[in-house]
Amino acid sequence: MGLLVVGSMALDTIQTPAGSIQEGLGGSATHFSYAASFFSKVRLVAVVGEDFPPRHIALLHSRGIDLQGLSRLPGKTFRWSGSYGADLNDARTLKTELNVFLNFSPELPVALRKSSFVFLANIDPDLQRRVAEQIENPVLVACDTMNYWIESKLQSLRNTLRQVDLLFVNEGEARQLTGESNLYRATRALSSMGPSILIVKRGTHGAVLFHDRRFFWAPAYPVLRVKDPTGAGDTFAGGFLGYLSRRKAVTASRLRRAVIYGSIMASFCVEDFSLNRLKRVTPAAIDKRYRTFRDLTRF
Amino acid sequence: MGLLVVGSMALDTIQTPAGSIQEGLGGSATHFSYAASFFSKVRLVAVVGEDFPPRHIALLHSRGIDLQGLSRLPGKTFRWSGSYGADLNDARTLKTELNVFLNFSPELPVALRKSSFVFLANIDPDLQRRVAEQIENPVLVACDTMNYWIESKLQSLRNTLRQVDLLFVNEGEARQLTGESNLYRATRALSSMGPSILIVKRGTHGAVLFHDRRFFWAPAYPVLRVKDPTGAGDTFAGGFLGYLSRRKAVTASRLRRAVIYGSIMASFCVEDFSLNRLKRVTPAAIDKRYRTFRDLTRF
Repeated sequence: MGLLVVGSMALDTIQTPAGSIQEGLGGSATHFSYAASFFSKVRLVAVVGEDFPPRHIALLHSRGIDLQGLSRLPGKTFRWSGSYGADLNDARTLKTELNVFLNFSPELPVALRKSSFVFLANIDPDLQRRVAEQIENPVLVACDTMNYWIESKLQSLRNTLRQVDLLFVNEGEARQLTGESNLYRATRALSSMGPSILIVKRGTHGAVLFHDRRFFWAPAYPVLRVKDPTGAGDTFAGGFLGYLSRRKAVTASRLRRAVIYGSIMASFCVEDFSLNRLKRVTPAAIDKRYRTFRDLTRF
Repeated sequence: MGLLVVGSMALDTIQTPAGSIQEGLGGSATHFSYAASFFSKVRLVAVVGEDFPPRHIALLHSRGIDLQGLSRLPGKTFRWSGSYGADLNDARTLKTELNVFLNFSPELPVALRKSSFVFLANIDPDLQRRVAEQIENPVLVACDTMNYWIESKLQSLRNTLRQVDLLFVNEGEARQLTGESNLYRATRALSSMGPSILIVKRGTHGAVLFHDRRFFWAPAYPVLRVKDPTGAGDTFAGGFLGYLSRRKAVTASRLRRAVIYGSIMASFCVEDFSLNRLKRVTPAAIDKRYRTFRDLTRF
């Protein structure tokens, strides 16, 4: 068993209408693993520089996250800086300093190759494939991507899609990858490219799951004040795969509940900067939002 | 009992990426009453000109719609012409010829003043109020509006809102009316302006109901090919109020089911121009989509 994530750890400097943060703990692997840790044991593969604050490592360690795949290399940690406008939808990137992340080429420690569930966060699709090929008999391999790879490495991304079971994608990316403007047609087209399970993330409009020719439509939790949407997608994936990886059986009903848990964790994420809100989350708070989701959709 | 609608009847000329139609049957009262006729007896109050094709009247009559409130006046029928781009969201108005609709001032026939449920379609808020004041002891008065009235007659619209029980609104209008960018805060702010029931229509993202401090989130039916979204909002309102008006009791669970029936009727509407798809709808087809909605949201 075991849930593996391969992705980034970063120091984020972010401005939103609700405030700002300087060099806060961020990165796809960070957000994913923190969210997933509420549900299962996570193994993290990532790289940080010499300047990475030890308290961040201690924080992940405190959540029981397995850090044997975390490398600390000479140089500086990956830094990202961005800002959001009033609608809080799309981030405007102000600066990206890849630093030690530039030469990230994950070789998995032997113990991590027997992971049942794998999340390939948004990195170069060639790297995603290299990781996937090191896993022995996984139950489910999921990946994320972004418009940058669709535009710059489409063929490589297509090769990756043929090797994964699940793709997390947003509406714009789904349309861009398939040329279909209708979301449902785009989703079906994506499933013919490889992944048998599709999760279309729609931000404040919820998420759609496509699996076994059926759609499932999950709302977003009604968050009354979004402070910072950074990391919401990876946090969603963490809640989703954290829940799903508790059992080997990937059933339709478990996939649906996993979407709800992903949505719940993402709703906490956006309520504050970095992991600030998630740090205060309790299992009881997760259960309470789960009941709210039931009430939101019941008719 | 009885469900009354006051609104427009029009001849629409529309271009979408899927095709076009010349002077097709349209208008808010038309779409509303046709959709509602699947659920209950509808009384229509509207005006047409001398050039209005009798076959359109015959069509509404064939659905059992009470047309005693339909006036035929000297002059031409209201015409609207618009086009949609690839994303099929916002219509671009090419031409509006109000014609006989310009002096529409509905005096309700006495028999119609005892209507239990009322839909005030998107007309001048002063007219909406004049209609509302003629109704004797209604169970529920609902209204629609648009950005045009928010910009040109805000105070009058606010007066109308104080007199209605339910407002149909889209996301942009909700934000514009309240100055709140967060949809949930905007919805709560709207309910403090008068209507105790809010329906926020989100197009392909479904609809949100707010009532008694609780949110209900309905998906949109996964329509694989949208031909023309014109009239979808009024068709939604028609399905909603058609279902709701079958009983005097307006309960939380009936409101939720009404949202689903509204969504179902709107999903048929957008699959073809004018009423072309709705004309082929059967009760069995409605039931089938209802089951799909259950499956779409169940977890």
